[in-house]
This record gives sequence, C-alpha cells and structure tokens, in this order.
Amino acid sequence: MIVLNGGSSAGKSGIVRCLQAVLPDAWLAFGIDAFVDALPPRLRDADGGIEFAADGEVVVGADFRTLEEAWREGVAATARAGARIVVDDVFLGGAGSQRRWRKALDGLDVLWVGVRCDPEVAAARETARGDRIQGMALIQAHAVHEGVSYDMEVDTTRTESLECARTIAARVT
Amino acid sequence: MIVLNGGSSAGKSGIVRCLQAVLPDAWLAFGIDAFVDALPPRLRDADGGIEFAADGEVVVGADFRTLEEAWREGVAATARAGARIVVDDVFLGGAGSQRRWRKALDGLDVLWVGVRCDPEVAAARETARGDRIQGMALIQAHAVHEGVSYDMEVDTTRTESLECARTIAARVT
Amino acid sequence: MIVLNGGSSAGKSGIVRCLQAVLPDAWLAFGIDAFVDALPPRLRDADGGIEFAADGEVVVGADFRTLEEAWREGVAATARAGARIVVDDVFLGGAGSQRRWRKALDGLDVLWVGVRCDPEVAAARETARGDRIQGMALIQAHAVHEGVSYDMEVDTTRTESLECARTIAARVT
Amino acid sequence: MIVLNGGSSAGKSGIVRCLQAVLPDAWLAFGIDAFVDALPPRLRDADGGIEFAADGEVVVGADFRTLEEAWREGVAATARAGARIVVDDVFLGGAGSQRRWRKALDGLDVLWVGVRCDPEVAAARETARGDRIQGMALIQAHAVHEGVSYDMEVDTTRTESLECARTIAARVT
Repeated sequence: MIVLNGGSSAGKSGIVRCLQAVLPDAWLAFGIDAFVDALPPRLRDADGGIEFAADGEVVVGADFRTLEEAWREGVAATARAGARIVVDDVFLGGAGSQRRWRKALDGLDVLWVGVRCDPEVAAARETARGDRIQGMALIQAHAVHEGVSYDMEVDTTRTESLECARTIAARVT
Repeated sequence: MIVLNGGSSAGKSGIVRCLQAVLPDAWLAFGIDAFVDALPPRLRDADGGIEFAADGEVVVGADFRTLEEAWREGVAATARAGARIVVDDVFLGGAGSQRRWRKALDGLDVLWVGVRCDPEVAAARETARGDRIQGMALIQAHAVHEGVSYDMEVDTTRTESLECARTIAARVT
Repeated sequence: MIVLNGGSSAGKSGIVRCLQAVLPDAWLAFGIDAFVDALPPRLRDADGGIEFAADGEVVVGADFRTLEEAWREGVAATARAGARIVVDDVFLGGAGSQRRWRKALDGLDVLWVGVRCDPEVAAARETARGDRIQGMALIQAHAVHEGVSYDMEVDTTRTESLECARTIAARVT
Repeated sequence: MIVLNGGSSAGKSGIVRCLQAVLPDAWLAFGIDAFVDALPPRLRDADGGIEFAADGEVVVGADFRTLEEAWREGVAATARAGARIVVDDVFLGGAGSQRRWRKALDGLDVLWVGVRCDPEVAAARETARGDRIQGMALIQAHAVHEGVSYDMEVDTTRTESLECARTIAARVT
C-alpha cells in the first residue's frame, strides 16, 4: 500500500492518477474525497458530519469519525485480500490521523508519502481549480504534516505530478 | 446492509440517494461505479479489465474480477466494523454475482433488493441521461436478475425513486 | 429555435438530450445552467449575482440580469447565423422572462414549450438527483409558468423524457 | 474581450478561472469545451462532427465547422451587447482559426493571448488529469500556434495559472 498525505490542492489526486499510469501492476485508488462522496448528503455540512466553513476550515464530528474508522478497516481488508491500493488522505489530525491509519493497516506493508507544496502555490492552484472553498489550501498546507513521519516526501511546488509519481513508483517496484 | 441489484439506467443511484435521505441513520453508499472509478484508467476498456463495447455490452476480465473480489471483502469489513452500507451493483453474472457477494458478506444481515425497470423505459432514460453507452440498459434489464433471489423487489417503471426508497426503508427500520 | 421553460427538476435537460437524439438535424443545446457556469464564481451566491438560498429560493441581481441579457442576444445571434438551438431556461420572472426572450429572439421562428411536472414528483426527483438544493423544485413548479404562453406543453409526471421529446420533435420537422 | 489560444492541457481553463477571480469586473467564460458539450452526442466522435482519435488527434468536419461559426457569431454578439468575455479555444487550424475569429469579432477590442507550455510538461499534466485522451497535448502543443499573432504570450511550464492571469489582467485594466 501507498498512503499519500497532503493538504488540499497540494496535488495528491494528480500524483495518484500518474501512479496508476506508471506502476506496472494495477493499483486501486481510494481517496478521502470518494469517502466523503459516499456519506449521506446531510452529513456533509452538518454537526457530527463534516463541515466546510466559508474560510476554508474543515471540521469533522463524531458521526464522521465513526464511519471513517469503519472505512479505514475496509481499505485495510481490501489490501489484505490482495489488492494493491494507493490511498490519498488529508490528515486533519496530523500525527493522530497517522496513528489511526497505522492501527487499521497493522501488518500491511505501507509506504508513507508526504505530499508538500508551498502554501502560496497551493492557494494559487486552489483558485485555478475553481471547485474548492478558498482558504483550505493555506490552512492545511503545514498542519496536516505536523508530527507525521514519512518514508519519503515529494514536493509539487516545482515538480510535476508525473515526476513525483515516478520517484514514488521507484520505491515500490 | 442493503444490496441493490439492477440493470444500467434502472434507477439504482436515485434510490440510493433517496435511501440516504429517508433512513434515520447515516448509511454509506458504495456502488460499483465508484469501484470502476478507482481502477487504473488502463483497466477501463481493456482486456483483463472492463470493456464497454459500442453496442452496450460490458465484458469484464480476470484482473477486474480479482480486484472486485478484494473490493467486496473491503465492503464487508466496513460493514463488520459497524457502518451501515447501501451497495448498488449490476450483477453481470446473475446468480454467480450474488453467490460471490453472499460469500463476502457471510454473517452480515443483508436485505437483497431487486431494482426492476421495463427495458424500453430504461433505454429511454439512458437516452435522457446522455452519459451512458446506448444499449446497456436493454442488454442488462433482464440478464442481471437471472437466478437471483431477493427479499424484495421494486420497479421504477412507474414509481419514483423516492417512493421505492420509502418502501425499502420500511423494511430496515 | 425551441425554448423549453420549466421549474428545477421538471426534466428539461433530459428532454433536451432526447431532442438532440431524435431530431434529424444537429441542434445545439444552450441552457441557463451553462450560462451560470460561465459566470465568475463570485457572482454565484452573491448580491448582484445569483443567490441560492438554503430553502431553495433563487434570487438574481442586477449584474446577473445585465450579463443574462447579453447572453440572450448571443443565443439569438447564433440562431440568426444558421444554427438550430434548443434553449432550456427557468423563467424566474414568469411572463417577464418570456417578454425578454421574445425581444431578443425577434424575427426568429420559435417553438415555446412549457415543461410541467407535478410539484411533489419534481421534489422527489430533486431528492433522487442529490445535486440540487432541496426546495427549488417545489418553489418553482408553478411560479415559472405564470403568465407564460406556449405553443405546446409536455408533462413529465408520468411521461418519459424521450416520449415528451418525440412529441415536441413532431412539431418542428 | 480576451481570447486565449493554446494546446490541450496547456493550462487555459485554470487561467480563465484565475482571470475571473482577479479581474475587478465580471467576465463571462466561454470556451470551446462548453461548445462541444452543446453539440448533439452523435456529432461527438462522428464524421462531420468532431472525432477524437485514440492517438490524440482531433479531426473536425463540415457540420462541426458550420455550428462553430454560428457559435462565434453568438460570442461576438454577446460581447457587442456589453458583456466582457474570456474565450479559451484550441486553434486546430492555427492562423486559419484566428482569421475566422477576427472576422466574427470585427470591431471589438480583443486581447489575443498565446498560452504556451513545454510539450513534455503538457503531456505529463494530461496524464495527471486523467480525463483526456493521451496524446492530444503533445500533438497540439506547437501546431495550434502556427502563424498566429498575439498581443502577449504566457508560458505555464514554470509559472502558475494565477500568475499568468495577473500578467494578462494587468493589460486589460
């Protein structure tokens, strides 16, 4: 398994798609965005669920955490059943998020990858995407890496996603 | 868990969204479409992966099946970890598909729901959606139900998704 | 030209896609949704632009109206240059909206089509779509037709989009 | 008006969204992608329409050209009616495409902007996007600029969309 962690608009999804293209085997892409899409609409923007404030802050509640924990168990079971998986997540809880993943992925061979991007550049890309609440990139850029330990880090500020993916792929093949 | 099975354009996704709206608890929606999106692009439209022929026929290969089986294990593990889940799938293999799900979901409490739709109506809705290959609805309408046994069936031909969802919800609450 | 008017979730887009499929000539589909997508993000949900209230009410301001009027002139010019066009709009201003369209489309041959749907059914479909603010369908169902005169009307409550499209197509060919 | 021309995956859409964010007035974004979406599905991937070959080549036919010309007249009329517009296009015909635009936009004040990107970098971004046929970026990177004259050029190879947009915005305000 490969777990990518980085702030919003750091370029995780682009790296995931490139990884799927350059890795010789077939890897499934499971991301936190797909998990959020699987939630009932009323848990998005709700107490207990996940709230996206107008300034870009993201707050998650108890219901979200409970389902997220079950989802992590599911990702782990998919890997244990033999699938190669790239996860991309935003460790809103920093080291705490990594601890929860480690617990779920116990016994699996995981490559932990930090995806960095200069906060100003990530914020500029957030504007260019046009589909995210302005402010998320800046708020998350450093916070999601606090206390997290990685096997390797990539930085998308001046390196294309495809090149980052090749660097990561070189470690798993 | 609730497992919905029906052909393309039978109205499964609409029922899932309505179920998430009417069920008092928070249910995760895991569908075969999201699984296909998680595949590497080269497995979509490829030997070994999943091929969508121009006439609407869908053929899946060995690589697809292997990953799909691992995904089913993951869905089961998510449910065992406590999450309520609505799965929507297209049983291309009919009874064989159900057997594979039954094996993965062993020990879980599952409501099996058949989603029917008159083939001509499903084909008309396929045209109205505009994002599916023409022909899938007609080819799959009956085939996906062959040999499958259900706890209940709904028919979207003349019943709105929301009403179908209410009928299903009445069975799980 | 064909101009379809109806409330949110009445089924206009489905009819447009079916019209493009059944009409023998190539018709362009220009809809109010594409116009809203062309606006700068800051005009969506803003004073002066277009605001989508949490209860489903839609309010448009002066900046929106000015650009909308220019857009209507553009649609008219595209038609005058020889393109066949299906427009789908939501006449938030009822008869006033139609008057503005009539002015822009002066001299063009237009088929005015009212797209009706039982408000409760439209609201149920809004839930099933999952991508619209709940309440728009109910608020708009009758209001958009007030004082508007049509060449023909279709009702999607119990008639599929494809059948509605065939009825409309029979009038233009 | 601002007309941006560049190959696929050169970064035009990102620049457009940033222009809408940084320009003090409200500018409409009209792009060739939205025009292609307005076509009847059967004209996409068809003789006479627009064909996307598996190697990334794009071929347009007579029906496409006729509707495209009418669309250009519509864009021009929208501008003449007072709207500020950013167009992003791919000049598949190079100088010929620009000549056709010049004819349609006769009398309007237009800023012609070339959007360049190193072909290898554009191809890498095409892989990272994952929603385009591989090969378009490479084929179009130089060809779309052949014989075209610009008021200014930007290069997204090492400059973020937002910075490119600021450079362009400085010329129109």
